[in-house]
Amino acid sequence: MSGAKQMDQGIFITFEGIDGSGKSTQLRLLASDLRLRGYNLVTTREPGGTPLGAKLRELLLNADEQVDPLAELLLYAADRAQHVRTLVRPALATGHIVLSDRYADSTVAYQGAGRLFPPELVADVVRIGTDGLNPHLTLILDVPVAMAHARLRCRREKREDDRLEREEMEFHARVRDAYKRIAANEPDRVRLVDASSSVEETHARIMEIVLPFVEARSRTIG
Amino acid sequence: MSGAKQMDQGIFITFEGIDGSGKSTQLRLLASDLRLRGYNLVTTREPGGTPLGAKLRELLLNADEQVDPLAELLLYAADRAQHVRTLVRPALATGHIVLSDRYADSTVAYQGAGRLFPPELVADVVRIGTDGLNPHLTLILDVPVAMAHARLRCRREKREDDRLEREEMEFHARVRDAYKRIAANEPDRVRLVDASSSVEETHARIMEIVLPFVEARSRTIG
Repeated sequence: MSGAKQMDQGIFITFEGIDGSGKSTQLRLLASDLRLRGYNLVTTREPGGTPLGAKLRELLLNADEQVDPLAELLLYAADRAQHVRTLVRPALATGHIVLSDRYADSTVAYQGAGRLFPPELVADVVRIGTDGLNPHLTLILDVPVAMAHARLRCRREKREDDRLEREEMEFHARVRDAYKRIAANEPDRVRLVDASSSVEETHARIMEIVLPFVEARSRTIG
Repeated sequence: MSGAKQMDQGIFITFEGIDGSGKSTQLRLLASDLRLRGYNLVTTREPGGTPLGAKLRELLLNADEQVDPLAELLLYAADRAQHVRTLVRPALATGHIVLSDRYADSTVAYQGAGRLFPPELVADVVRIGTDGLNPHLTLILDVPVAMAHARLRCRREKREDDRLEREEMEFHARVRDAYKRIAANEPDRVRLVDASSSVEETHARIMEIVLPFVEARSRTIG
């Protein structure tokens, strides 16, 4: 293990992608690799990164709950405000690297392109919910929708019916396109990562992006 | 009992005021009086007018929960979006009078003037959360802060300490002033009702405002 790394100000890195893109696995692998290299790290997620957020996540992802799409958009923003102001900002202020499984780009992609809310409305809600905090680096894990669905199917207990499956594929195709537009529009912040090959190959690609990024912002002590 | 009253489109009436102003009591009295006169009525409240809202109310009003003020502002907006789109609008569309204990003016008064968020931010959140639905009539029940606190003290189990009491009085004085500004700025929609005298006298004042308002919008059938 190398010496501890210190930063005056932390680095906020977010993982994005459609369900089944492998975000959560890749975040875990990156976290353990960075910890081995001596970095102080916080891993978190949206929704549900805080105690309040865990309760909101339960409301948002529980299929029994009837949540209107506009209420859903605002609940994600409330979860984000709590996350930014009670967890992410304090961790950055004490020099941590914060890795978050989803952040504001998920709202733009899912609620904007997926649920078809007007872009200006989504932009207003994102601006308010983030309290002005943008990630330093965002990794969008890109996979074909059919592959993501095949991965998800392994996790699920029973086979979905065909109509629902087709609707979900169309929805996720819109979300994937939205992510690609985000990457094209903000090349300084966002990197689109091909996540269609093996877990190890994708991890290697992510390390090639992240390591130089964090090394440039830290110094080794002790 | 007079004949049933029918309206092509409902009427949305909101009750506002600081805690201890007597809103909930007056809403109940008005509802029972209008029902006796044959009106179809829905009584509701914010937060918590819907099943999702009841869970959000629990999060918002439970003192154990650590809710950041920006997250709080957005949770009230989420509760409102669910309320408007799943309960208030459908009830209005079927010709009901909807009486709500609190609505958007509470956010302007409590989060804007009370918690001191910038007015533009509060206005954006209110515009998004109401989905464009404004009340036809708003009754702001106005009482001196000291009187409202005396009424609340009867309901509470133990005496608050003096510092907390003083902070709450200052907070509620700002909220009361904000309500008065709303009434002054929107005289067509908002009526400020003196609620410092007896329950019966205040109810009579409210009936003088509401009855002509709803009679002008309905016709007797059968």
